[in-house]
Formats: sequence, C-alpha cells, structure tokens
Amino acid sequence: MGLKIRSLVSALKVNSRLFSTCNRLNQFNEPLSGHSMARAGGIASMMRLPVQETAEGLHACFVGVPLDIGTSNRSGTRYGPRQIRAESALIRKCNNATGASPFDSFQVADVGDVNINLYNLPKACEDIRKHFLKIINTGCIPLALGGDHTMTYPILQAIKEKHGPVGMVHIDAHSDTNDLMLGEKIAHGTPFRRAIEEGCLDGKRVIQIGLRGSGYSTSDYDWAKQQGFRCVQAHECWHKSLTPLMEEVRQMMGDKPVYISFDIDGLDPCYAPGTGTPEVGGLTVIQGLEILRGCRGLNVIGGDLVEVSPPYDTTGTTALVGANMLFEMLCVLPGVIYK
Amino acid sequence: MGLKIRSLVSALKVNSRLFSTCNRLNQFNEPLSGHSMARAGGIASMMRLPVQETAEGLHACFVGVPLDIGTSNRSGTRYGPRQIRAESALIRKCNNATGASPFDSFQVADVGDVNINLYNLPKACEDIRKHFLKIINTGCIPLALGGDHTMTYPILQAIKEKHGPVGMVHIDAHSDTNDLMLGEKIAHGTPFRRAIEEGCLDGKRVIQIGLRGSGYSTSDYDWAKQQGFRCVQAHECWHKSLTPLMEEVRQMMGDKPVYISFDIDGLDPCYAPGTGTPEVGGLTVIQGLEILRGCRGLNVIGGDLVEVSPPYDTTGTTALVGANMLFEMLCVLPGVIYK
Amino acid sequence: MGLKIRSLVSALKVNSRLFSTCNRLNQFNEPLSGHSMARAGGIASMMRLPVQETAEGLHACFVGVPLDIGTSNRSGTRYGPRQIRAESALIRKCNNATGASPFDSFQVADVGDVNINLYNLPKACEDIRKHFLKIINTGCIPLALGGDHTMTYPILQAIKEKHGPVGMVHIDAHSDTNDLMLGEKIAHGTPFRRAIEEGCLDGKRVIQIGLRGSGYSTSDYDWAKQQGFRCVQAHECWHKSLTPLMEEVRQMMGDKPVYISFDIDGLDPCYAPGTGTPEVGGLTVIQGLEILRGCRGLNVIGGDLVEVSPPYDTTGTTALVGANMLFEMLCVLPGVIYK
Amino acid sequence: MGLKIRSLVSALKVNSRLFSTCNRLNQFNEPLSGHSMARAGGIASMMRLPVQETAEGLHACFVGVPLDIGTSNRSGTRYGPRQIRAESALIRKCNNATGASPFDSFQVADVGDVNINLYNLPKACEDIRKHFLKIINTGCIPLALGGDHTMTYPILQAIKEKHGPVGMVHIDAHSDTNDLMLGEKIAHGTPFRRAIEEGCLDGKRVIQIGLRGSGYSTSDYDWAKQQGFRCVQAHECWHKSLTPLMEEVRQMMGDKPVYISFDIDGLDPCYAPGTGTPEVGGLTVIQGLEILRGCRGLNVIGGDLVEVSPPYDTTGTTALVGANMLFEMLCVLPGVIYK
Amino acid sequence: MGLKIRSLVSALKVNSRLFSTCNRLNQFNEPLSGHSMARAGGIASMMRLPVQETAEGLHACFVGVPLDIGTSNRSGTRYGPRQIRAESALIRKCNNATGASPFDSFQVADVGDVNINLYNLPKACEDIRKHFLKIINTGCIPLALGGDHTMTYPILQAIKEKHGPVGMVHIDAHSDTNDLMLGEKIAHGTPFRRAIEEGCLDGKRVIQIGLRGSGYSTSDYDWAKQQGFRCVQAHECWHKSLTPLMEEVRQMMGDKPVYISFDIDGLDPCYAPGTGTPEVGGLTVIQGLEILRGCRGLNVIGGDLVEVSPPYDTTGTTALVGANMLFEMLCVLPGVIYK
Amino acid sequence: MGLKIRSLVSALKVNSRLFSTCNRLNQFNEPLSGHSMARAGGIASMMRLPVQETAEGLHACFVGVPLDIGTSNRSGTRYGPRQIRAESALIRKCNNATGASPFDSFQVADVGDVNINLYNLPKACEDIRKHFLKIINTGCIPLALGGDHTMTYPILQAIKEKHGPVGMVHIDAHSDTNDLMLGEKIAHGTPFRRAIEEGCLDGKRVIQIGLRGSGYSTSDYDWAKQQGFRCVQAHECWHKSLTPLMEEVRQMMGDKPVYISFDIDGLDPCYAPGTGTPEVGGLTVIQGLEILRGCRGLNVIGGDLVEVSPPYDTTGTTALVGANMLFEMLCVLPGVIYK
Repeated sequence: MGLKIRSLVSALKVNSRLFSTCNRLNQFNEPLSGHSMARAGGIASMMRLPVQETAEGLHACFVGVPLDIGTSNRSGTRYGPRQIRAESALIRKCNNATGASPFDSFQVADVGDVNINLYNLPKACEDIRKHFLKIINTGCIPLALGGDHTMTYPILQAIKEKHGPVGMVHIDAHSDTNDLMLGEKIAHGTPFRRAIEEGCLDGKRVIQIGLRGSGYSTSDYDWAKQQGFRCVQAHECWHKSLTPLMEEVRQMMGDKPVYISFDIDGLDPCYAPGTGTPEVGGLTVIQGLEILRGCRGLNVIGGDLVEVSPPYDTTGTTALVGANMLFEMLCVLPGVIYK
Repeated sequence: MGLKIRSLVSALKVNSRLFSTCNRLNQFNEPLSGHSMARAGGIASMMRLPVQETAEGLHACFVGVPLDIGTSNRSGTRYGPRQIRAESALIRKCNNATGASPFDSFQVADVGDVNINLYNLPKACEDIRKHFLKIINTGCIPLALGGDHTMTYPILQAIKEKHGPVGMVHIDAHSDTNDLMLGEKIAHGTPFRRAIEEGCLDGKRVIQIGLRGSGYSTSDYDWAKQQGFRCVQAHECWHKSLTPLMEEVRQMMGDKPVYISFDIDGLDPCYAPGTGTPEVGGLTVIQGLEILRGCRGLNVIGGDLVEVSPPYDTTGTTALVGANMLFEMLCVLPGVIYK
Repeated sequence: MGLKIRSLVSALKVNSRLFSTCNRLNQFNEPLSGHSMARAGGIASMMRLPVQETAEGLHACFVGVPLDIGTSNRSGTRYGPRQIRAESALIRKCNNATGASPFDSFQVADVGDVNINLYNLPKACEDIRKHFLKIINTGCIPLALGGDHTMTYPILQAIKEKHGPVGMVHIDAHSDTNDLMLGEKIAHGTPFRRAIEEGCLDGKRVIQIGLRGSGYSTSDYDWAKQQGFRCVQAHECWHKSLTPLMEEVRQMMGDKPVYISFDIDGLDPCYAPGTGTPEVGGLTVIQGLEILRGCRGLNVIGGDLVEVSPPYDTTGTTALVGANMLFEMLCVLPGVIYK
Repeated sequence: MGLKIRSLVSALKVNSRLFSTCNRLNQFNEPLSGHSMARAGGIASMMRLPVQETAEGLHACFVGVPLDIGTSNRSGTRYGPRQIRAESALIRKCNNATGASPFDSFQVADVGDVNINLYNLPKACEDIRKHFLKIINTGCIPLALGGDHTMTYPILQAIKEKHGPVGMVHIDAHSDTNDLMLGEKIAHGTPFRRAIEEGCLDGKRVIQIGLRGSGYSTSDYDWAKQQGFRCVQAHECWHKSLTPLMEEVRQMMGDKPVYISFDIDGLDPCYAPGTGTPEVGGLTVIQGLEILRGCRGLNVIGGDLVEVSPPYDTTGTTALVGANMLFEMLCVLPGVIYK
Repeated sequence: MGLKIRSLVSALKVNSRLFSTCNRLNQFNEPLSGHSMARAGGIASMMRLPVQETAEGLHACFVGVPLDIGTSNRSGTRYGPRQIRAESALIRKCNNATGASPFDSFQVADVGDVNINLYNLPKACEDIRKHFLKIINTGCIPLALGGDHTMTYPILQAIKEKHGPVGMVHIDAHSDTNDLMLGEKIAHGTPFRRAIEEGCLDGKRVIQIGLRGSGYSTSDYDWAKQQGFRCVQAHECWHKSLTPLMEEVRQMMGDKPVYISFDIDGLDPCYAPGTGTPEVGGLTVIQGLEILRGCRGLNVIGGDLVEVSPPYDTTGTTALVGANMLFEMLCVLPGVIYK
Repeated sequence: MGLKIRSLVSALKVNSRLFSTCNRLNQFNEPLSGHSMARAGGIASMMRLPVQETAEGLHACFVGVPLDIGTSNRSGTRYGPRQIRAESALIRKCNNATGASPFDSFQVADVGDVNINLYNLPKACEDIRKHFLKIINTGCIPLALGGDHTMTYPILQAIKEKHGPVGMVHIDAHSDTNDLMLGEKIAHGTPFRRAIEEGCLDGKRVIQIGLRGSGYSTSDYDWAKQQGFRCVQAHECWHKSLTPLMEEVRQMMGDKPVYISFDIDGLDPCYAPGTGTPEVGGLTVIQGLEILRGCRGLNVIGGDLVEVSPPYDTTGTTALVGANMLFEMLCVLPGVIYK
C-alpha cells in the first residue's frame, strides 16, 4: 500500500477538530491551540499536532521511542513518550522569549512511536535504527522522545548513513561512554562509545555538558577526552550563564551537521526528578534553555530528549520540562523564522 | 468539507502502525494488539483503536468529555478521558469471561473529545448535546469517557431526540436528582432531575444501584422514587451477587432502549479512589461487572463512565477500572458476537 | 476569663457563614451544608461544624488527639485529626442507610485538639487524660480523632473516673495488650493491658474484632482471653456479615456503659492504606459499618477512631473512611432520632 | 443579626487554646505558637490565627477564595486555600530576615472563605467582588488565598470602588491579558484585560515579572505594553538579584495605592509544581522573596497569592511557598514595625 | 575460597544486633523482633533475618530476583525484592491464624539477590537458573522475591534438575502460556509454555487460579487446558471461599513435589495496585491466604511471589501483601511445626 | 562473645556477592559496583558496602539513627536511614569532581543502626550516646544517617568524651538552640543549646549556615551569637558561591577537631522536599556541595546528615541528596587520597 493517507490528510487541509488545523495565514500544521479546544481535550499527540504515519512531506517530526530495557538503575522510561506528549498539551506555537515561529516556517507532525522489541535490546536498537533511517531518508529532521539513552546509538547509526560522522551537543550527567555494562556492549551507559567506534560521531565536534556524579574511577572521562570530546563538568557551570559557552560551541561546530542529545538527568533533580539515574548538583533549567537556544545557527540534523521516567515523575514536571526542551530544539532547527 | 477522511482511512484498510489494523480474518477495526506493538507505544487512543473525526460508518464509538466544572467536591475529571485512554492500552480485544468479541462484530473507533467550553457549564452542556446528537444521528452508539456526571444530562437530551424517553441502568453512590446545587440548575448532582423534567428518561424503567452515603435529609431518594425509579441502596447489595438483580432489570427494561450511566463512585473507594465524591461502603468491582454483564440482551443505545479524576488516582487503578467498564459496556451492545 | 464565648456563640444562634448554622427547623448545630457553601470552602473543622473551646452545653463532641510518638512502625498519625477533618467536609447531616439524624437530636460541635506534649509520651498521656476528664465532666460524649492508639489508655482513665470500668467494642488488627514495647509501659501496643490493670475496662464486656497478622508467639491473645475478652480473629469474619455477631455483642454489653475504639487498621489495607501497622486479610469497610451500626442501642459513652496516618494516605481515602466511621459512631449514640 | 460575635471575641481578648492568644506584651492577635501547641494540633486557619466572621476591627485579614472553574489546564485550585492554611502552621510570627513584626503592629485574623458559586464563573466573580467590597469597606487590607487567577478581576473591581485605579506588582508566568478564552470574557487568562477596561488598574503603574512560556503569537505582550505595563520576561531575570529592579518599582509606584498579585506559577515549577499552568525557566523563590521584600515602603492596599493546586502538590511544598509569600506580603504592609 | 563465613556466623550463634538472634529456646534464626529493635532500624533483609551468602545449612531461604526486562506493560519490578524486604520488617515470627511456627521448625535466612544481567533477558534467565540450581543442590527450599514472572521459567528449569517435572499451584490473572511475545520466546507471558515444553512441569498437576481479563482470542486458555492444566477463572471464584477448592488441589497434587508461583496480579488491583499488568475483578487477599494456607500438607519444594512493582505501589501495600504471602508460603513448607 | 565475626569477614577478604568486594588493587572495602551487580540487586546497605556489627578496624563508618520522636512538625525521619541507604545504591566509589578516592584510602563499612527506644526521647538519646561512644572509642569516624536532629546532641556528648569541645560546621535552616520546646529540654530544636551547656561545642568555632524562616522573635539568633557562633543567614548566601566563605571557615577552625552537622532542611525545599520543617529561600544543592568540599583540610572527626523524612519524599530525591552529602563528607575526611 504505497498511498500515504496521512499526508493526504494534510494535503486536503482539513480543519481537523481531532488534532489541529492549518492556520488560515499559513500553510503548515499547527499545534491544536488552547483557544480552539480546551487543553484537557484532544488526543494526546505531541503538542496536539496532527499524527501521520510516515515522515513524508515533513520538515521535522516528533517520534517516540518507548524503551527502558537499557536502564541501569530505575526503569520506567518506556512511558516517557506518552507522558511527554500528555504534558506537551500546554505548549503553544510561538517562542515568546526568542521569537521563533517554527510552525510558520515548515511542516511538522507527530509520527508516532517506533515499534520496538521490548524484550531484546539489540533487536530494539535495530528496530530504532531502521525506523529512523526511513525518517531521515525522507529528508525529515527527527526529534525523538525517549526512552532510555541506549536509543541514541541506533539513531546515530541511521544518521551516519545520510550525514556521515556528525558533531554532537550532549547534555547529560553521564558521559555514557562505558565500554561495557554488566558485560554488555549495548546499554544506556555505552551509546557514545559505540557511536565513536562505528564512526557515527566526529569526536572533535562533540561537547558533553553537565557531567558529574560519583564514578567508578577518577579517569572516567579520559576515554571521551581522548576522542576529542570537550567534557564540561557540571561544577564548571555552577553560578554561570552558559550563553558564552555556546558561542564557543558554535565556533566548534561550524556549519557541519550537529545532533543534539539531551538527557534530562543533565538537569538537577530538582527540575527533573522523574529519571532513572539522577545526580545532584546538576544544570539548571535555565542553563538547559541557554544551551538549546545557543544552538541557533547550527546545522542541527536531529535531536532527542531522553530518560524521562513517568513513574518517578509524581507531578508531571519532568515530562513538562522534557516537552519544552523538545520544543526549544524545534525552534533552533535550520529554517525557523524568528519574528 | 464534506469528505470524511478518516472513514476513508478505514475504507482503505491500511495496515496502520500508528493505531491498529483490520484483522485479516475480519473486516473491522481492532485495538492495536500488545503482540503487534509493545503497550508503551502508540498514540493513546481508547484501546489504541483508530481515531476518526466523525462517527460515520461506526456501529459504536468511544468519545471523551473532558468536563469538571460541574463537580461539587474535588475537581480533576477533565483529565478523565485522557487517563482512561492511557490505561486502556492494557485491554485486549476479547472478553475471556463472557466470550464477547465486539471487534469481530462491528466497527468501532475512538472519535476523540467533545470540544467544550470549560468556563461556562450551560454552554458546555450545549456543546455536549450537539456533539452527541451528531453521533447519534449517524446511527452510531456512543460510549462516553467522562468527565463529571453533569454530562449525562445533555447526552440524554440528544438521545431523546432519536429515541424518546429511555430506560437507564444507573450505577452511582448518589441519586443525582437534586433540584439545585448552590442555586444552580445544572451541576453534577442534578442531571437526572433535569432529564426527567425534560422527558428524556422513562422513570419507570430507571434503576439506580449503589446509592449510599450521608444525605441532606432522610428523604433524599423520595423524589426519585416518585418518578418510578427503583433505588437500590448499596447496603442492600452487601455480601451478594447482583446477577439475580440483573435478571429483574432485564424484565423491567424489556426491549425498549436503555442507557447505561456508570459513575465510578458507585464502586467502593478501594477500587476507585480517583474520584471527586467518594463514599464508603460501595459496590465491589465484581458487582460492577455483574451489572454490566447482566445488561446483555438489553437494547443498549448508549452509555457512559464518568467521574474518573486522575489527580486523585495515584496508581492509575481508577482509570483502569473505568476503561474496563467501558469495554464491558461495548461487550453487551446489541449485535455483539459471543464465542 | 471564665466566660465561655463559644457556647455564647451557639446560644445566640448566629447564622454563621464560617462554620455552620442552626437549622430553622431545629435548635442544634449542623454541619455546614454543601448546599450552603461549596465543600472546598470553610474552615476545616469536623464536618464543618462550629468549633467551640469547651464541651459545655454539648451532648457530643469531636476532639482531636494529634499524637504519633507511641507508634512502632510508620509514624504520621499526628496529622490524623487534621486530615480526617479535611475529608469530613464531604459528609452530610443524615445517615441515609439507617435513618439516623444526630443533628436533629442534640448539640454537637468540634472542640479542637488536645494540646499535647509531642516529645514525652507519658506527659502526652497525662495531657489527654486531663483534657478528656474535663470534657466528660461536662456530661458530653467525646468522639476522638486520632492519633495513635496509645491515646485510648488515658481516655479510658478519664472515663473510668466518671463511669468506672466500662465495656468496649474494639475493632483492630492487634490486641494492643502487650505488657511492654521496647521496654516501655506506654506505647500504642499496650493501652488495653494498662487499662485492665487500672480497672478502666470490664474485661468480660470487651470484644476485639479483626485480630490478625503475624505474632511474637502463638499465645499472643492468651492474656486478653484470660481477662475475659472475646477475641474475634479476622479470619473468623471472612465471607460473612457481622450483623449476627453484633446481636451477640448487644447481649454481652447489656445497658452498661460501652466505649468504642476503632483502629483503622482493623480494616484491610485496601480500604485504609494510610496507617502505621497495616495487616493483610482484614475486615471490610462493610463489616466496619455493620459493627458500628450494630452498636445502636448500646449505652455508648465515648469512642475513638485512631491510627490514620496521612503521609501514607496518598489519596485521602483512609481519612475519609475514618471520618465516616466517626459519623457512624455519632449516629448510634444514645438519644439519636431515627427517621 | 447585626451583632458581630467574632470581633466581640477579639474584644474580649480571650486566651484561646483553639486558635491563638493575645500576647501579654501586645494587644493584637498572634499566630498560635509552636511553643504553645504542637504544630499538628489546632484548627487549620491561616497561621493558626483566630478566625472571625467579618473584617471589622482588623488592619489586615487573610481570606480564602476556593475557586478553580476559571482554569484552562489542570484544575484543583479550589483546595488552594485549605492547603495553604494547613501548611501555614509552620510559620512563626516574626520575619527573621527583615525584622518585620506584623503581629506587634496591628490586628490580623483569618476571615474564612468567600462563599462562591462553583458552577457559574460570572456569579462566582460577583460573589467575590461583593465579599471583598465588604472587607475593604471596613478599612481592612485583604490578603487573598487562591484559588485561580480569575479571582483577581473581581477583587480589583472591589478595590476600585474605594481606591480608584491602582498600581500593581504582578508576578506571573503569564500576562493574563487575553481578550477571550474559548470565547469567554471571564477566565483565569483574562483578569487584567478586564481590569484595565473597567478602570481598575492604572496601566502606567503595572509591572509584570516572570513572563515566559510559549505563546499564541509573538505579540502576546503587545496589548499589555500598550496599556503602559512594564513587562519583565523571566529570561531578563535569569542569574540576577531582583533587588535593583524593585528600586525602580518603588520609583514607579510612588505613594499611590498598589495591589500585589502573585501567581505561584511565576516561580519555576521546581519550587511550585502544584499549579495548573506551569512554565519552565521561571523565577526562583529567592527572587520571589526579593520582589515582595522590595515592596516595603509601597502603599500596598491588598494582595493575593493564587493558583496553588493541591492535587498536583504531592509534597505540600507549593502550598508552603504560597503561605510564606502571603506572610511576606503581610510583612510589607504599611504600618508594620521592623525590629 | 571454600570457607562459608556466613554459615559459620550462624554456627557461632552470635547474638547479632544487626540482623537477628537465635532464640534462647530454639536453635534457629529468627526475624529480628520489633521487641528487640524498633522496626525502623536494622538492615532491610527479608523479615530482618540474617543474611548469608549461600544456602548451605538452610532448610529454606528467601532470595531476590531483581528483574523487570521481561515485562510487557509497566516496568519497575526490578525493585520488587528491595521493597518487599523493606515492608517485611512488620512481619513477626508466628502465624497467629494457623499456628505455624516456621522459625521454631528449621533454619531460614535471606540469601540476597541473584546477580542478573539486566540488559539481556536470556542471559538473565541463565543467571537465575544457575543460581537456583546452587540453592536447590544444597537441599534448601527457595522462596523467591520477584521480579517479573519471566523468572519462574529458569527457576523451574533448575527445579527440574533435582525434582523432575513438578506440580504447580499458580495464582495469576494471566495464564502466561503464550508462545511468543513480540516475537520472543522469553518474556513474562511465556514461562509456563517454555516450562511445559522442557518438561519442567507435570501438566496434570498444574492449577491456575484467578485467570481473567481481556484476551487476544476467546481460546487463550486452550493450550493450557490441553496440557492438563486446571484453569480456574477469577469469576468462578467470586463470592466464595477457596478453601473447598484447595481440598481438591491437595487431592490433585498428592505427595509429589509442588511449586507455588504467586503473581501478585492474581489479586484484585485494590489489594495490589503496584504491579505491571493489573486486571480488574481479581481474587481477594483473603482468597490468596486461603490458597496458600490450603497448600499445607503439600510437598512444596519452592515458591515465588512475583510482579511487585514499587514505583506503582504508592503506599507500600502491594509489597506488604507480597511479603505476607511469602511468609505464608514459608508457613506451609513441609516440616513446619504448628502450635 | 568477643569474637568479631564481621571484621573476621573483612580480614578474610572474601569476594562477597552479597555486599561488595575488596578490589584487587586495594585492600579496603568498596561499594558494590554497578558493574558487578545491577543496582537493583543487593542488600540495601549504605552504598552497598559490607555491613559489620562493630566499628572495629574501620577508619570511618556509616551508622543509622532511626529517630523521629523529637520532631516538631512532620514526623517520618525514623525511616530516613533506610531510605538513604536505598537511594545510595546509585553512588559510585570515586568523586569525579574533586578526585577524592576514599575507598582507596581507608576502611569503611556500614555498621547498621543504633537500637533506640522509640517511645522515650531521653532514653533514645542515651542509647545514641552510648552507641556512638563505642564507635568513637574504636578510633572510627562516624558518619550518621538521620533521623531527626535531636540525635546530634547525644552524638556530641559522645564526641566530647574523646575530643573535648569541638568546632562545628552546621548547615541548617534553624539554629536549633532553643532552650525548651513544649517545655522539654530535649527535642530537635534544642541540641546545640544542650551541647553548649555541657561543653561539647567550642562556641567560637561554630558556624551555622543557611538560617532562615520566620521566628518566634527577632532575637532568635542572639543566644547563639552570644556563644560565639557565626550565624550566616540564608539570604546572605543568595546568588553566591560559598567557596570564599569556606576559606574563612578553614581559618576559623584551624586544625582542631570539627564536627559536621548537615540538616537537609538547610537546603531549599526544591532540593529536599522530604523533610519535616521545610523553609523557603534556602541554600542550593550546589552551595551544600561547596560547603562540604570546602571542609577538605579540616580535622573532621564526625558528621551527620539529618531530617530526611521518606513519607514526604515522594520521588526519593531528598534521600538521594542526603546519600550524596554523606558521601561528600566521607570524601573530606582526613586521610583521603585525591587523584
């Protein structure tokens, strides 16, 4: 069945009560507005955007990865995508702080979730890789709702097929460059070791921000540094704006492709308690916003927000922060109009 | 735009990863199976059924009513539909206890939510009435996800236009036949007073099961009884199966149209803590199932499950019970095949 | 200052917006009705009754005992009275199941809390004893909101001064007749040993219902039985109405004074998770109601509902059950009119 | 019944165990001290102050507005006043950081809640307006416990009758100057549009601090600015003390009347998760304190703390912050003695 | 290192403050008594029993299996063993209802957790199999704290090596006899299919009690029945004691080896909300106790309590029920003295 | 029984699966690594270190004090030690930010909990004093897991016996130098008054950081200052690094013995909601880390982390912060190797 029903849907510009509508003044999907339908209503897609099955015709898409079998401490991130979508109903279409108007700029939709094998981590990774490859091959930029951080490994594999080794802005409490975890090559603490080994990342254009916590040795970051990563520990960020750092990052990245990987545990647990391996003394939400807004101008070709674990997110705040960070990523994609 | 995109979707019998598929052996929508996609995945529609915008072409539909401005004690039911859908992902297509196979019997979909005015209760009721009238006029049987109990009043208004005064199986801790609440005619404690006044209900074919709790006077149920309602207090149900009662109910209802209104607070708070006006000493979940399964053979023309309040449902159990009760209603609709 | 302002308040029959009003048809305090003021409003006294400082002029009173330093497992019951009051806003003035109309029968008020020493358990007990003695000496029947079960010991001491040794209907998972706990004479597992030793209880007229759980020896109930207590283990109550048992209880108690002590952990944890020493396989809420309603006709001279621990009562259900059980106690006090 | 019983109560200077006492060294009400009665005890009025029915004889009062039918996202604020009072038991009478001693300065009490129509928002507003008018007409300064932000509209209407158009220090994530919400004039996103239209506010003396979040357009604050409002977005406050800003505010306000409206969502969700429309990247609690302490010297004629939603405040922290902010408002009222 | 330090510990009969002591009247380990140390103290081993590294010298042991990567819906059971241990501190050494005194009968200890590969389910199963084989080979009866139900498959593999095909009393909402889940042979819905295929179970001596919930077809239990399983659906148990059923079970099992597998979701969610695949209308806790107590006299050679998921167990009740069920299993092991 | 079984255990250098192992490269205990056993496994000792009964042979130990009967507002801290241990499983052996490698430096173990009388606060204090005296007399440095702050009084009594009056770095929202609470000398608000009176503290070398909140008078800190304490109010710390302050502290303390007492409520409630007397506007976690890391070089002879109340710590974050702060204390003990 080659016919793409959903892009057909958008082609028809139906004024859809269920998801959202194309604005009269614009030709693109918009989040279902709280002025059009009370926020408690509507199917819980990301920002109550239209859902379509494939990424065809989209400039960017939100895509869920309901994975948690790569986690080392608390599990629960399999429900991250669903909860992020639920909390995202509060987000409106414009970015008042920066003027970004992504939904006036290009076509965006929620393309649902990767259908993953939840009992077999290598197969799940393969499911993710294939799914993202399809998205990327349409030319669409994927913004992924996680899910545990293992998922970034197969995403980067897929990205490599199109873009070769990419740079990365990586916000995280952990370097995630272990060789093995409990003897396994694939887990949520190893994705970037694997990604380097397979040539998915350009080590000289990788920055890790927010690293902290206790470690298995005092040389935990040595391997990463040897690959050329810039490792910015959380305590180097204390009491500071990260806007100046991002200027350096833009220099470092140039105009070559950059992936953004935002592990919610990069933030201090006061902002994001609902995650599996929280570490104290982390980045502030403000610094998180500064990092993402500081990515404006980069050639961002994909991104993810990972490690939201709803059963530990008793107030929904972690998922809300996650949803906002994904919106901020959308706002710095190439081609976004600023007003 | 007269074209119905979504029924077009089902007409094309797309094998949809996003929602669900038409089974090879059957021609109807099915809930997305946990064998096809891990339950944590997929957009959270009711039972992960396909979503379509209108009720055209459907035998039955699930429809949400995100209302809570009619509540007298705790609010929060506006998020009932969203949470019931989220928990419903666990429900599979067949009823193992009764043999009912609704998805082999007819076409069912989730038609999303009523777009209601959340600041003005009379207008919200009018929104609900009109929306249900449209559904009913397609010939589709609506099963509503509440939402506070005020909503049953406009639903019954709509039903009356097609069916005239109907019988009702009403499970509830409260009679909901107040004349006024804080001086208002419309609130979640008055729907059945209004419905009788407007000829929506055939009082002689109304049974209320589970009534209990303290009252404003010892004659709180007198008005209902005067209308011919059979009022079964909870304490009359203690230590008993309700299967015999349902035999009487089937006699009482005959083959004329019956509406089922299930207020989750009819159940004891141990089964359904997430509700606004919990009363101790209520029905068991088993009795709830007996009531609904006992409706098999009735001419059920609609139903609702109301008063699930997610912020007070800390484990999701209340929404899960609600989702199951809606599935059981589906299983007793006329035309369901039993295997 | 000897002048009793609050009884002056009630004498004046002020139509009070803050707490409640004297009904036009009656001369007594009433709970502030949900028809007069939305339940979310009003100062959170028990059932939103008027608060007065002393028990003068009252037939019965609600009194809080914010104690938890006698607990052996989880603490938190110090906030029991406050939470029971908060949840009690839902309770209306009449008992629909039994016809009891306590607020048409006599004067009731909330007299606030005992001012206890929260760092010294023997002193706290002395505070409680003195406080209850004052209440009892006015001729008022105290219904106490607990607080941990230690409190029943000093209450019984106070009661003894007026009534001599009394009978007791005791609902509990535990016999609470230990001699010592961690070497101490006073704790929440010893009150009835102390009460017997001091002649506060008439052992032949004591019944304990709901006993269960693991024990320190298989002779844990021997001492109680030696005092003449009737010990009804929970498993003797399974699958049964307790109405027949209560007939026996009424025989056993005759017309001599009886105290009711209801430890919320007598109920199964599914009904009352918010308590400190939950034991599985307990009484149902229905059985709890049967016990209390079965006390109608007894010469009840006081009662308590103890061991509600709000920090473990995540949905408020335990406190709600507690509030209802206190209302049911009120409904069986001598002098209550049934309609 | 014209007699004011409660001011009679305070006139008599009763040493009240239930609420609080008049200090020997001073002539005014005081919060019931944790040294006089354990904090778990006592009826939960604001700071365990005496409750009186009217504002007569008071310099300032705390008054609850249990409203949540004006909310656009999560509801639950109807229980804000009750929960703020419960958490306020921890607050003592003096402000150690600033030296403010409000209870040595004038008479304060809790005057209970506005009796509002919870099913009809315009009527609820009218209830609030009338109630505040009565308070204001006694010369008492109202400090309101919310409740959703809709309530500030009728409060400002009442204030206008006495003070004409007033200045306002408005802490909030949202400008709340929408014209309509879901087609309605009255909702929690419109109060300041209405207030300006009706001449309740002096636009040139309005400052909004903490604005942020996504918007429906990039011109969301234009209308406010056109009225002369100073709109300070949250990102302008990042990494900064707001003490210098408050110096400007004092200049701006002069000695003319100023109202303080503190929406708890002005703070970052890490400080106040229990609210309906949380936005990330907000003010810190420290900045909140700086703003309120910076109001010292202004001619504050009223204030409110709104949008505390207890069902989403799983630890009570949001209500605790709210209670403290109200105490800080009290500490900057004209006439407070600093030691 | 052949020396067994811990059995040396017990051989020395140290009066251990940390864990527990050998009773003066008996020669065996005992749970640390609440009379010896307050329940909040002590390292959280099962029932605060001594911990030893191997099962040498033990008649029975408690052993944890922190697994959750076999779950199909909610995860979190990896923390089941830790939480069951924490809640078990409340359990005392004797069974007051039955007279069982296991700690006067033989040596019991907590032997810690299986060290499992949490990223690879087949390897985890192999870890479990080997670990249990070691335990069983010492002659010790293992009682396992789960963990998701996948674990019972490798446990049965280990048991087969010693006992050959065994009978099984299986309490569960689900038959767990799927052939595949998402295409995998090993998951928490397949253990008993695998166990039958590999000759670990004697199908004619398998009873499944509590089956219910929706299904993928109406023939979901056919395969099980074909193996000779007795499948008792939950609705067959409604309103009944299961004591008569257990008499039949004892007939069915004879004196050949029997394994007990208790999935906490066999119970209704009101008793055990903290689990991954809750189904409404389940067994009562009382029925659960009746089943286990009805196993007295069987030749029980092992058992497990699985599927406790702490992140969904907001009050700890599920883990408490689980701990009690494990204690009841201990009480029916061959050799237990009844007093 | 003089034989010390557990130190025998460590002497034998068993490779223990249950707790941890001696590293091949080093001779000391290590936390059980997440690489050796999944974090969900293993008995929940502090950092999954070996447990031993006495402090013999240890340079430092973790010891729990399950106390909460000295609390004035919310209770629950009796479960602080258990919860801190549970969350500590996430902490690894090295401090990546500072290079500290305590487990390469000396022998550390968890020595379990003080066996305290939970019904009698003075006796509990005596239990604590004696227990700590034994630890201290072995030459071991105790790091205590609280428990309410009352416990620091008897700990300081024990410390005085060995060290005489000591200096103290005290992080707290409260000065805890009340003379009496509800008339009692011993409670969680009085430990440092008692300690000064008894010569346990060298007032000139005491610094209190983070003081704030409302007070009973504006001279609440006067007594402390009169003893020579340096009182640093929280508002003096706002918007600042505390690294410079700690330089002054090191000057102030010299090389004489210093005790660290860290009340988790010194931090803002956003970081540590799970505590009994939270005060808004507190220290950040970062400042907490700066204070503890700034203690490097001091002659630290003991420390505690108190007031973690698990029932109010809905996400575990408070206990996690507590566990980390204890690890940081360990990292600044004299003798720690930095790499």
